[in-house]
Amino acid sequence: MKIEEIAIRSAATLHVTPAGVRERREEVAVEEPFAIQLGGETLAVTMRTPGHDDELTAGFLLAEGHDPRGVAAARVVKRGTLSHASCGVCGRDDVEELVARLSPVAEATRFTPAALVSAMQRLPDHQPIFARTGGLHAAALASRDGELLIVREDVGRHNAVDKVLGRAALDGRLPLSRHFLVVSGRTSFEIVQKAVTAGIPALIAVSAPSSLAIELAERFGVLLVGFARGAGFTAYAGRFRLQGVE
Amino acid sequence: MKIEEIAIRSAATLHVTPAGVRERREEVAVEEPFAIQLGGETLAVTMRTPGHDDELTAGFLLAEGHDPRGVAAARVVKRGTLSHASCGVCGRDDVEELVARLSPVAEATRFTPAALVSAMQRLPDHQPIFARTGGLHAAALASRDGELLIVREDVGRHNAVDKVLGRAALDGRLPLSRHFLVVSGRTSFEIVQKAVTAGIPALIAVSAPSSLAIELAERFGVLLVGFARGAGFTAYAGRFRLQGVE
Repeated sequence: MKIEEIAIRSAATLHVTPAGVRERREEVAVEEPFAIQLGGETLAVTMRTPGHDDELTAGFLLAEGHDPRGVAAARVVKRGTLSHASCGVCGRDDVEELVARLSPVAEATRFTPAALVSAMQRLPDHQPIFARTGGLHAAALASRDGELLIVREDVGRHNAVDKVLGRAALDGRLPLSRHFLVVSGRTSFEIVQKAVTAGIPALIAVSAPSSLAIELAERFGVLLVGFARGAGFTAYAGRFRLQGVE
Repeated sequence: MKIEEIAIRSAATLHVTPAGVRERREEVAVEEPFAIQLGGETLAVTMRTPGHDDELTAGFLLAEGHDPRGVAAARVVKRGTLSHASCGVCGRDDVEELVARLSPVAEATRFTPAALVSAMQRLPDHQPIFARTGGLHAAALASRDGELLIVREDVGRHNAVDKVLGRAALDGRLPLSRHFLVVSGRTSFEIVQKAVTAGIPALIAVSAPSSLAIELAERFGVLLVGFARGAGFTAYAGRFRLQGVE
């Protein structure tokens, strides 16, 4: 089986530009949790793209100081369903209960394409550290009309999002049901999970979402936008939240 | 204090182009380990950019299902030295022993700028999943003359590197003292750590390194190259490994 067959999934999207709106199928990279166990102990759960799993395990064991050719001895557990999704990024080895605890974003807030585009176009003006180093992610909280209220930068995308949502939480502004989140890079499971936890109904990104980001956004009623560049973007989930789009 | 003062560090670099070589100071984003503890338990260690630490903690607690305004109750431990560096990315809460176990790359292998540039220029031809989805990182193992031997893609940069080094390990090719590693994005502490573990003397990347990546590369004798674009690049550490560069 070719790697592309397990690493790529097709998604129904809505491509939105000032010239009009059209349905379009896009290919997205698959993101799935993968647990590496050795001697009954879970060494790590990582969100990975399927394929070359033995290599991934060997490379991980190598970096951990184990015999990398001892892969046969490592019991590799693959967990493929969202209900078993785990986030290894911050050291959790099981966030099953974390997903179970999430509530759909109930409020019916909708957003105009113009507001989404406006917020994204303003983001570069608020990335002073990236401008000087080229080495940082950014996240921002935007009001419904596209004004940037909080912008934070960090070497870790999840940290930039935590800083933004943490600021809003400390200010007593949660749930953020009339706002949307803007991120400079790609969107993964973890970013959508954080947005849902804060009650945010929409998330827009400069780059591509993963398969699991789309799945989670769809399930919890979040508008998920990717490839927001210039005046156009692609909606991957929650398109009912787009206002003025037929 | 302005955020830029703690989030940016200056680095002495060598800028290499076909037209010549010159010393240049560059600004790099600071990466530092940060531990979040609650009630004596370490919830996470994350590699983050300093600044807005209370917000980072509040946002993290929120996503974990804790009271985000309970930050005062969270005992925040900052660990700023490399010897205490921890990598939260894969769930480890302490990799002190991991750094202590690393050995400098002793072999005196050197690399020509032409070979480094050649490998980087070939990388896009070997990213079939990125070409279709726009959502993946890539890592590659290159021979000393710049030929790409193994290329892997993944939603996680560390996974792409693990797959490449895992393949080499399974093939019995370690240590990789006559090879170099190519990565599509930025370089962090974790990527350099993995390269050192495999005995790789050089690492080149399309984008910027973090402060901690530079520090680790310098300490273990690894040539660390960033912003490898077109025919030029910037060397941040281990420049003694550049061949034919005065």
